[in-house]
Amino acid sequence: MVRVGIIGATGYAGAELVRILINHPEVKLTTITSRQYAGVSFTDVYPAMSGLTDLVCEEFHFDTFCEKTDVVFTALPHKLPMEIIPKLLNKGKKVIDLSADFRFDNVDAYEAVYQAHTAKDLFKVSVYGLCEVNRDAIRHASLIGNPGCYPTTVLLALIPLLREGMIETTQIIADSKSGVSGAGRSLALATHFCEANEAFKAYKLDGHRHCPEMEEVLSKEAGTPISLTFVPHLLPMNRGMLSTIYTTITQDYSLTDIRHCFESFYKDRPFVRLYPDVKRPPDVKYVQYTNNCDIGFYVKPGTRRLVLISAIDNLVKGASGQAVQNMNIMMGIDETTGLR
Amino acid sequence: MVRVGIIGATGYAGAELVRILINHPEVKLTTITSRQYAGVSFTDVYPAMSGLTDLVCEEFHFDTFCEKTDVVFTALPHKLPMEIIPKLLNKGKKVIDLSADFRFDNVDAYEAVYQAHTAKDLFKVSVYGLCEVNRDAIRHASLIGNPGCYPTTVLLALIPLLREGMIETTQIIADSKSGVSGAGRSLALATHFCEANEAFKAYKLDGHRHCPEMEEVLSKEAGTPISLTFVPHLLPMNRGMLSTIYTTITQDYSLTDIRHCFESFYKDRPFVRLYPDVKRPPDVKYVQYTNNCDIGFYVKPGTRRLVLISAIDNLVKGASGQAVQNMNIMMGIDETTGLR
Amino acid sequence: MVRVGIIGATGYAGAELVRILINHPEVKLTTITSRQYAGVSFTDVYPAMSGLTDLVCEEFHFDTFCEKTDVVFTALPHKLPMEIIPKLLNKGKKVIDLSADFRFDNVDAYEAVYQAHTAKDLFKVSVYGLCEVNRDAIRHASLIGNPGCYPTTVLLALIPLLREGMIETTQIIADSKSGVSGAGRSLALATHFCEANEAFKAYKLDGHRHCPEMEEVLSKEAGTPISLTFVPHLLPMNRGMLSTIYTTITQDYSLTDIRHCFESFYKDRPFVRLYPDVKRPPDVKYVQYTNNCDIGFYVKPGTRRLVLISAIDNLVKGASGQAVQNMNIMMGIDETTGLR
Amino acid sequence: MVRVGIIGATGYAGAELVRILINHPEVKLTTITSRQYAGVSFTDVYPAMSGLTDLVCEEFHFDTFCEKTDVVFTALPHKLPMEIIPKLLNKGKKVIDLSADFRFDNVDAYEAVYQAHTAKDLFKVSVYGLCEVNRDAIRHASLIGNPGCYPTTVLLALIPLLREGMIETTQIIADSKSGVSGAGRSLALATHFCEANEAFKAYKLDGHRHCPEMEEVLSKEAGTPISLTFVPHLLPMNRGMLSTIYTTITQDYSLTDIRHCFESFYKDRPFVRLYPDVKRPPDVKYVQYTNNCDIGFYVKPGTRRLVLISAIDNLVKGASGQAVQNMNIMMGIDETTGLR
Repeated sequence: MVRVGIIGATGYAGAELVRILINHPEVKLTTITSRQYAGVSFTDVYPAMSGLTDLVCEEFHFDTFCEKTDVVFTALPHKLPMEIIPKLLNKGKKVIDLSADFRFDNVDAYEAVYQAHTAKDLFKVSVYGLCEVNRDAIRHASLIGNPGCYPTTVLLALIPLLREGMIETTQIIADSKSGVSGAGRSLALATHFCEANEAFKAYKLDGHRHCPEMEEVLSKEAGTPISLTFVPHLLPMNRGMLSTIYTTITQDYSLTDIRHCFESFYKDRPFVRLYPDVKRPPDVKYVQYTNNCDIGFYVKPGTRRLVLISAIDNLVKGASGQAVQNMNIMMGIDETTGLR
Repeated sequence: MVRVGIIGATGYAGAELVRILINHPEVKLTTITSRQYAGVSFTDVYPAMSGLTDLVCEEFHFDTFCEKTDVVFTALPHKLPMEIIPKLLNKGKKVIDLSADFRFDNVDAYEAVYQAHTAKDLFKVSVYGLCEVNRDAIRHASLIGNPGCYPTTVLLALIPLLREGMIETTQIIADSKSGVSGAGRSLALATHFCEANEAFKAYKLDGHRHCPEMEEVLSKEAGTPISLTFVPHLLPMNRGMLSTIYTTITQDYSLTDIRHCFESFYKDRPFVRLYPDVKRPPDVKYVQYTNNCDIGFYVKPGTRRLVLISAIDNLVKGASGQAVQNMNIMMGIDETTGLR
Repeated sequence: MVRVGIIGATGYAGAELVRILINHPEVKLTTITSRQYAGVSFTDVYPAMSGLTDLVCEEFHFDTFCEKTDVVFTALPHKLPMEIIPKLLNKGKKVIDLSADFRFDNVDAYEAVYQAHTAKDLFKVSVYGLCEVNRDAIRHASLIGNPGCYPTTVLLALIPLLREGMIETTQIIADSKSGVSGAGRSLALATHFCEANEAFKAYKLDGHRHCPEMEEVLSKEAGTPISLTFVPHLLPMNRGMLSTIYTTITQDYSLTDIRHCFESFYKDRPFVRLYPDVKRPPDVKYVQYTNNCDIGFYVKPGTRRLVLISAIDNLVKGASGQAVQNMNIMMGIDETTGLR
Repeated sequence: MVRVGIIGATGYAGAELVRILINHPEVKLTTITSRQYAGVSFTDVYPAMSGLTDLVCEEFHFDTFCEKTDVVFTALPHKLPMEIIPKLLNKGKKVIDLSADFRFDNVDAYEAVYQAHTAKDLFKVSVYGLCEVNRDAIRHASLIGNPGCYPTTVLLALIPLLREGMIETTQIIADSKSGVSGAGRSLALATHFCEANEAFKAYKLDGHRHCPEMEEVLSKEAGTPISLTFVPHLLPMNRGMLSTIYTTITQDYSLTDIRHCFESFYKDRPFVRLYPDVKRPPDVKYVQYTNNCDIGFYVKPGTRRLVLISAIDNLVKGASGQAVQNMNIMMGIDETTGLR
């Protein structure tokens, strides 16, 4: 039984971790922390889970926390993890960090959109936890930078094709749409019910922080710098994310060629499902509350324009589900445990 | 007082016409028809309008209909208008058709996605009713092909730039999202509440009929054939449509250049509003229940990628509002009358 | 032309007042104030109205405000109006207050649920602005306490029957449901999108402040104290309010008797619509963006249990629409002006 | 391993049964039938479950169906079950019927609101599957009439108090609100997205068929005829149901007395959760996708009016979850298996 703790358990991603982990048969969730709700029962914050757990949110105390845990999930705003995680690693903990702090290889890329990084030496240790792509490295990792939600949709759709050289590395466009839970539980006018309901808009047109995260990974996969055009939008719904990605194929590949590329890449990857039938493309409805990433694709006949569609639940595969999947891989547990 | 009739008044577009026309100060709505609801009070079909109109849906009888009307709106499924409209024109009626039957110049383009056309000689008479672009031709028209909802968003964003040669004519991509009312009032599983709510997906990836409509207009405006990549999506909301359009500028134009192009083109066009502030792009919430088309734009610094965002209410500017705007222009009434 | 000002124009009720008043043909909206947005264009706060008004939110300065206005709407949190309104009345302004400060006759009832009242001498001057009931008094009033949204639904359904002695004064139950805009524009976890969407609950089971407001009016109308059982609920939608009211009739009245009572009471009241057909009861959809109150009713055969259903748009008839209706009546303008 | 089959697996309740049963550790779902989708993969009808099951919908053939099953769930429109179930029982199958056909004791009550019953002799065999109330009888049953969704909410809130004589048997009112999935997957204008979204109304004011179902059970529990006032409403959301129930207590019971009554009745019932804190009443959000029934209660001080609030997921505890709970009890499996 792996002893697990969550630092920051009362945001939406933290709570989703609790939901998954209390049902995980090879894990014992021993401790959860929350600054805002220290001393409060988790089920007082999330009554939906009443009857399923007796956990009480605790203040974070390093020593007592370490005593109770083998694996740690940090579900905190960026900047806090870079302070805590070095110490956790020193104590021999394995850490899965849901923030952006350890997703980058290049500190300049990180610092350009976040802030100064105080633990950048860990970049050579941390592994980008995109499970279907980096599974081997994850097996031996002690620190995982769990991918952002948008990057998960975009990268899983592009990497197989990039690796095979089947798409051009210029002019890649990702038009992404996210449910409101992606914006978290903190109050803001944009996520006030009457502002977000029956509404739809793009946001952060001039630069979302997930864009450099994607560009770094894509460039590495392609072996050449990739500049992505990325426009995120806010959907009037709770959960779910869908990216429509516009690319150009390098030769006159058929839909079957595209399909084979994906099938080959994802053949032992239980959470990726392919949608070869253009009459029935992915729908976020099909992935809600699951750890799946559903991928569809279409080439307009007579052209080289390839449209990719990729859908996930932003809180599961886009955050906490993938984090648990990472833990499973790190701990030698079957990848799907606790995630079906 | 212009005497107006609506053929097909109980679909969503027809009902929106009723809503607008009964409040229009220079018009008398004299007759409305409906096959499904003949003999039924309009307010029994749409109780929301109870107290505002006593109109009863009638069976369509050509002679009696003609006696009561000077201007006719046809809000019917395509194919029916091409049968009725020639006769209405013969009687001297002015006609605004909300179907696709008279939107095309090229009959082959029409027949490729709809069906055989039996009144194609009228193509040289009909005017494409995109008011902000074709206002002069509309003034003298007797038959208007009222634009589709998707085309309205895409064309109003692209035409000013195309005319000035500021964007490339290749690689134009429109990623469009529509509220469910765009699918009409006919029952279908895709628009059943539980299927569309908390859901989001692309549809008609392999070809939406609005695509050739847009391609024909764009090609004419550009003076060169344009092949558009167009992917429509279904939003879990009632009304509203937003297109995110990806283009490449032909030179290193600044945002100010783009803005000036739009300001100049739309300076006497009361229903187009510009959103130059990238921090506050258009939101469908801002255009619901209005005849406005809101346009935003952004160039990623150091690149030539121009993102355009265009939002309308699909039932107003995307259908019935624009139809009334067309009527106003045809009849010499101030363009905004009844539409504020 | 009546010169009108709004104190507190950027909350949802204030903004709805702006929307209505800028289209009102006999009014000039000369000034709007906002503490939070002083100096900001109204359309920067509500881009939807861009192009329709150039008003800039001002800081409230008593003298300049008074110079520009004949009629004043106060759309402020309770307690502030009781400080400002006495001075406005001294200057000869007519005032419509959307808060609870001047809705009560009995200061103890007010103070029990709000706070100490510093202008209670005005209670003998103020008129409860339930237009369909108090129209004559409103005509001569200088100060209107504009009714709460829940009270508007409940009182309009009950008063005609109470006046005729057709229902028992005991055991009246109102089960009310409100769209989220009723909670205002201030941020709160309960109205955060992900908490309110796909959710439904009762709230303030142990006492909503609209309950004593209703009890006071009902008791006065009945001539005997009435204790109401009132349970409000939060609907996952923007606008609209529906109350289902359970009462007992005092004799074996037929549905026709009930209908006649309502028809007689509301015969010159253009904003009340009756729904005698039990197969088609009121729906909040039918009243959205209107000033109507729709009322349905049903008696279970063989019993004396009368169910009443009453629906409004909480921001229009439940707040700003009724406020403008009050102004119309006070100023001798046709009641429906600006409200169709 | 219990071999289980579902007749009618592609409606919402049937599909929810599939979802639960394929994850149930002591059951093997061997066959599912569907008239509409015979020959189609279940995951083609419900792509969300793709990867989780290979089941193909079959035409129903009695003999082959019987060979593959020990326990049968019938999720069909009423009337069909009464034809099939007698034969299934003859073959020794245990049957859980989700329709109304075997919920009644009194055939007249059934026939008054449904149609002639052709298998009424089975009424003495069938058990009303309200698990928390009839657990002992269910253990030995071979035929379960699985309760309606509305009755589940209302009965679980009322029965403990009725049994103790703590509430009056007259003047019980249930104001119930249901998510749209309660209306099923069949197309209808009332459940068309644009009609149900941003809408709210009562329906079947003059008699919902769940009312006599509740009255029969309540009367039996109380030992005296109970006439219920029941008004159902349609919520603009997918899943969830909440009933607000108005009753009168027979003595001056305190909230603690009420609480003790519930605690005592439900102490070994893992799916009922109590909400004694009036500041945090049940919310349908807390029960979505669970088999829980959450119950809150409040007595207005100085009165005998008791308000009960009861929430479930209409597709789980209101249909398929409770059906599986019934199966668990019948088969001697732990009640919560497959339902956490």
